[in-house]
Amino acid sequence: MATQFYSKRNLQFLLYEVLDVQSLIKYPYFQDHARETFDMVLDSAEQISEKLLKPLLTEMDRKEPQLVNGRIKIHAGMFPILKKFGEDGWINAGFSYEEGGQQIPSTVLSSAAFIFQAANYSSSVFPFLTSGAANLIRSFGSQELKETFTPKMYTGEWQGTMALTEPDAGSSLSDISTTAEPTDSEGVYKIKGQKIYISAGDHDGCDNVIHLMLAKIKGGPSGAKGISLFVVPQKRNSQLIDNDVITAGIYHKMGYKGAPIAHLMIGSNDNTLGYLVGEPHKGLMYMFQMMNEARIGVGMNATAIGTAAYYASLEYAKERPQGRVISDKDIAKPQVQIIRHADVKRMLLFQKAVVEGSLALLTQCSMYADLALVTEGEEREHYHLLLDLLTPIAKSYPSEMCCLTTSAAVQILGGAGYTTDFPVEQFYREARIHPIHEGTTGIHGLDLLGRKMSIKNGKSLQLLVAEILKTIEKASSLDQLKPFAQKLQIYLSKTDTVTKHLLGLASKDVEIFLSDATLYLELFGIMTIAWQWLVQAIKAEKALLAGATGDDFDFYQGKIFTLRYFYEYELVKIDALMKRLLSEDNVTVEMEAAWF
Amino acid sequence: MATQFYSKRNLQFLLYEVLDVQSLIKYPYFQDHARETFDMVLDSAEQISEKLLKPLLTEMDRKEPQLVNGRIKIHAGMFPILKKFGEDGWINAGFSYEEGGQQIPSTVLSSAAFIFQAANYSSSVFPFLTSGAANLIRSFGSQELKETFTPKMYTGEWQGTMALTEPDAGSSLSDISTTAEPTDSEGVYKIKGQKIYISAGDHDGCDNVIHLMLAKIKGGPSGAKGISLFVVPQKRNSQLIDNDVITAGIYHKMGYKGAPIAHLMIGSNDNTLGYLVGEPHKGLMYMFQMMNEARIGVGMNATAIGTAAYYASLEYAKERPQGRVISDKDIAKPQVQIIRHADVKRMLLFQKAVVEGSLALLTQCSMYADLALVTEGEEREHYHLLLDLLTPIAKSYPSEMCCLTTSAAVQILGGAGYTTDFPVEQFYREARIHPIHEGTTGIHGLDLLGRKMSIKNGKSLQLLVAEILKTIEKASSLDQLKPFAQKLQIYLSKTDTVTKHLLGLASKDVEIFLSDATLYLELFGIMTIAWQWLVQAIKAEKALLAGATGDDFDFYQGKIFTLRYFYEYELVKIDALMKRLLSEDNVTVEMEAAWF
Repeated sequence: MATQFYSKRNLQFLLYEVLDVQSLIKYPYFQDHARETFDMVLDSAEQISEKLLKPLLTEMDRKEPQLVNGRIKIHAGMFPILKKFGEDGWINAGFSYEEGGQQIPSTVLSSAAFIFQAANYSSSVFPFLTSGAANLIRSFGSQELKETFTPKMYTGEWQGTMALTEPDAGSSLSDISTTAEPTDSEGVYKIKGQKIYISAGDHDGCDNVIHLMLAKIKGGPSGAKGISLFVVPQKRNSQLIDNDVITAGIYHKMGYKGAPIAHLMIGSNDNTLGYLVGEPHKGLMYMFQMMNEARIGVGMNATAIGTAAYYASLEYAKERPQGRVISDKDIAKPQVQIIRHADVKRMLLFQKAVVEGSLALLTQCSMYADLALVTEGEEREHYHLLLDLLTPIAKSYPSEMCCLTTSAAVQILGGAGYTTDFPVEQFYREARIHPIHEGTTGIHGLDLLGRKMSIKNGKSLQLLVAEILKTIEKASSLDQLKPFAQKLQIYLSKTDTVTKHLLGLASKDVEIFLSDATLYLELFGIMTIAWQWLVQAIKAEKALLAGATGDDFDFYQGKIFTLRYFYEYELVKIDALMKRLLSEDNVTVEMEAAWF
Repeated sequence: MATQFYSKRNLQFLLYEVLDVQSLIKYPYFQDHARETFDMVLDSAEQISEKLLKPLLTEMDRKEPQLVNGRIKIHAGMFPILKKFGEDGWINAGFSYEEGGQQIPSTVLSSAAFIFQAANYSSSVFPFLTSGAANLIRSFGSQELKETFTPKMYTGEWQGTMALTEPDAGSSLSDISTTAEPTDSEGVYKIKGQKIYISAGDHDGCDNVIHLMLAKIKGGPSGAKGISLFVVPQKRNSQLIDNDVITAGIYHKMGYKGAPIAHLMIGSNDNTLGYLVGEPHKGLMYMFQMMNEARIGVGMNATAIGTAAYYASLEYAKERPQGRVISDKDIAKPQVQIIRHADVKRMLLFQKAVVEGSLALLTQCSMYADLALVTEGEEREHYHLLLDLLTPIAKSYPSEMCCLTTSAAVQILGGAGYTTDFPVEQFYREARIHPIHEGTTGIHGLDLLGRKMSIKNGKSLQLLVAEILKTIEKASSLDQLKPFAQKLQIYLSKTDTVTKHLLGLASKDVEIFLSDATLYLELFGIMTIAWQWLVQAIKAEKALLAGATGDDFDFYQGKIFTLRYFYEYELVKIDALMKRLLSEDNVTVEMEAAWF
């Protein structure tokens, strides 16, 4: 079993050298903190991960949760983990002091989550879901709802969920058919319907499950405009009376097996009560708050799994002797470690480039979220717009690419990688969920090109371009980085050409305009990660110029070489994507079902 | 469960319209055949697949083989399948009449194998391995070896294997340490060592296992030149006396679970006899005959799995309603089948382009093998050289790409695709072995660029280019195809530029020359499949011009549209690869282990 599953050094580099997360302390909301408290949070996450989460990684994959007499039984090893997450305050650590929270910046908390996810992805989702659900209640719910539900969610005794998907409504949420009928009590509704693929939708590691559920109030508007948000507990009030939410099934999956995914029947006996959150018909808007967080969270999950796979394959590559260097194949000499082979180094650099680039982007997004929380007016709007634009990329780039990086990890181990004797095959299976959940990659492509590009007349894009140009300018002042700054400038301009071309189609034929939105998302993702690599390289190059030695020298050299790798092997992919995106052959639109 | 798992229409198109496999009948070796006998072979494969193989697909994945008291127990459903393969003569169907075979062309037999593999990959490997092992004995073994071992292999009572890999020798076969010590009997040796990852290395569905094993005769030359080939039976002679080949372990794997993969200890009690095949120290050369067949076979396996996943996702896309067309999002209208969405069609076209393009290349390779068998002199050499050059591509392109196409199949099914309720997640897991076994993709890159390009002063490449130019010329005479012919010409010339650039490095720095051989293999693969799409499109376009109607019209339209897809989305990837391959930044060579 691989020992290292993430790099503390790299996380500290991103937080303290690149993002300067300590600078948040100057805002009153964060004023009680210091680098020491941030380090404590991260160290604590590492300790819990090493002691509790990581030892269960394989075990939870082998012994999946099962549905037994209407209740899902999870791996018993999860019980102390759930208890620990609650007791140590992880679930509401980011919330305000008044809410019992600790006002920890999101940038630090999501970094801690990254450590948990890299150690054991399945086990990390339980508190994350509860935190997101509680966040919806505290943001939009009445005082009564808050008092009734959030305290036991914060302690981890009650599990929270997002209950959106239905058999006929996955990507198309407008089509949900779960209904809500008013009762005599204000804000209390009878709920009826079914929900599928509900993560942690039921399990024996908690006393109650609090579903944040989308449903349509009878008589309301059709489609998305008629969707409302409800708190639908598995058990009602403090007496924990059964609320007629039946666990009808459990899904068995390719990976991510440790987390139970439930199929729920709601109100089969006409006896499910749901509590309206906020105003009627605004459910989707509320839910999007949670979904946007969840989307950044999914990008982080993928990055964490990719990171664990990277270190597992790196460790193997450093230890496994096989073959000889191409320039000296003398059979009498002993075999060399495979990390000496250029093709193996290429596969390692690929992983490093993707996972560290993704982590840089994701922590940057969290920093924007923190800044949006503590700033005002135009400044706040800027951070919101940047975060909004980057969300589909921060979700999709890591999700898509970590399917490929975990595949590279398997390839480095060769036959061994395909066996269950090593963890990389599990990482390969676990990575594959991320392009699907919290909006498929296709949905995010539509979001980026069809929505985000045009918000406020393209202001989000202008803001991002301004950030990238700032980076290019800084890099241009460093001799070693000048060529990379120039390259990024060229590809930024190529991206601009493609964006203008596509937006030009919007008014002509919306079907054609959006037909390759997924490819546009891919192109934009590569450009964004190239930017993040230049951001990192500036800090690394300055440190090298300042005379870094020893481990520091190695670390910064690694950054510069990975920048080179990314610009040599990844950034150029934009050329192929651009060629396609500027083409006028609408083959995917014109293709007919009968011709397949 | 998806019903269709391959396209009979497409297979017939390739065999009879594109390759004109009937033309083989003019050669004496194949003179007893006719299209009718070929059809019978394929129909029979389809029937066996539907009746026996496909129903066990999921079941064999769920109930893996287990090692019980030193013997591997496979799924009992395999017993009648193994019997059927033997009884119906599938194992030696391609061999000569004198050997009890039926002299069926390899093009037809490999197409039948494709059907088996698409129905249930794990179950298809047993007879294929026996056939390959028997082929080695009949090609290079003494009369006595043939008489002793092949008859029961042909009936399927005895299983054959390829026993190459050892704990310290995977990609680097030169480093095997299994030894062979002469005994008093000529040609009989005492064998000692261990072998790992041996497919079908032991199981309870046969009476004996015949290992074609590489070992080094003591005192022989070091490295690859000292490797000899032995028949090492699990049980000795007709009395089936134990030959001290111990099944020490079984590997549990991510996919491909139905086939048992064994860890073998040979001669632990100093009592294993092995029988030398052919001359001493020529084992690797002999084995390469089997490995080349096996490599083409692996490409076919990957293609077959990709094909099954394609049809499973196509069926789902045609049935699953979700969302509305982008140009008419009226919520009052019912949802449309997802095959109406351009992004879904793109993912289907991607799969179709890869799997049908790969199948075209693979059947073309088999046709070259058949022609090499029945022709003489220079003509024969041409076919050999073409086959030799195309082998690393025919192995690697489908293997690498079907990891991505099965991923697209999962994506089309969304959340459902990630669950074990549908077969696509299994196809995703099973596809992943192919870039690893029978030589990793990295090894094939080295083979293509480092070896095949220079054989006979590049004659193989010249022959292939001539074939491609012939296709370009034919396509140019058809108005609709002229633009594609021109594009292929451009990319052929780009490939030539890259090839010359890289070969130019060979004498300067061999490490740099071969550092991106994997990318070169990828580039060459794309160009080759683009050629195969143009080959198919010529036949399709001619049929359309001749007035094809109904299902035929649909079929040929599908071919033309998939050609368009390939040239729009896949061929352009060469631009990115070319940029990298012409670059002078040797980042992967210069990167040091300490910097990761």
